[in-house]
Amino acid sequence: MTPEALRTYLHDHIPLSRAMAVEVLEASAAHVLLEAPLEPNINMHGTMFGGSAATLALLAAWSVMHLKLETAGIASQLVIHRTSMEYLLPTTGIAQASAQLNDADWPNFLQTFHRRGRARLTVHSELLFEGQTAGRLTGEFVAISDA
Amino acid sequence: MTPEALRTYLHDHIPLSRAMAVEVLEASAAHVLLEAPLEPNINMHGTMFGGSAATLALLAAWSVMHLKLETAGIASQLVIHRTSMEYLLPTTGIAQASAQLNDADWPNFLQTFHRRGRARLTVHSELLFEGQTAGRLTGEFVAISDA
Repeated sequence: MTPEALRTYLHDHIPLSRAMAVEVLEASAAHVLLEAPLEPNINMHGTMFGGSAATLALLAAWSVMHLKLETAGIASQLVIHRTSMEYLLPTTGIAQASAQLNDADWPNFLQTFHRRGRARLTVHSELLFEGQTAGRLTGEFVAISDA
Repeated sequence: MTPEALRTYLHDHIPLSRAMAVEVLEASAAHVLLEAPLEPNINMHGTMFGGSAATLALLAAWSVMHLKLETAGIASQLVIHRTSMEYLLPTTGIAQASAQLNDADWPNFLQTFHRRGRARLTVHSELLFEGQTAGRLTGEFVAISDA
């Protein structure tokens, strides 16, 4: 999937991503990098609203998991089960969110998925502002077989 | 603050709340109840997007803390430090978020705030769909004195 295709998919299927003006810079099963401008995501302090920051990080985490499943030929519904978000620095401009899977977790995930038709995987996403880590999200997803 | 005044404040200062079409049903220092329709918050499964659900719950938590500080006459900046969100049920219609403070935490918060000019407080917010608990958010906020 190209960055443009992921952008279209997100904007078409998750209208909040369009309202946030989310753009896709990288889109592969190995790494997803998203960004969002400040204006539609601002709060009363002139910084990025925490809900927008967490949502951007969640979209990156969801996307990399989605692309990894697609690349592996796994037809499934991907459901978010739990997230935690830590806010480290205020973001006063364009924020980016970078997510990648931990390859070490993948074999266990696959084994459980093929045995039970569902399995959970934890994905980490980093919020970046001007090259610094501005936040960290951990998302626990459950993939449920479509078969 | 009336529900209408809180709605106007949120829509004016956090454009994402307007994009989500957040409405305010109750707004007091004791309890805040918000709701959001499905359409602007939908995902590819036809249910409420996890980012919208968590943001609605965060807005309720932020609002009740904001109103409590205002009622107590405390001039401060309220900053989100950490959140965790648990998703329990899919939401296929209007979602509500209900937040209230734990009164037992308030005296300690006040004491620390007056001594150090800043203090943190944890707020719980419940996501509701058709009267059932569909999710739970815990938010840790830091209030920083404007003085």
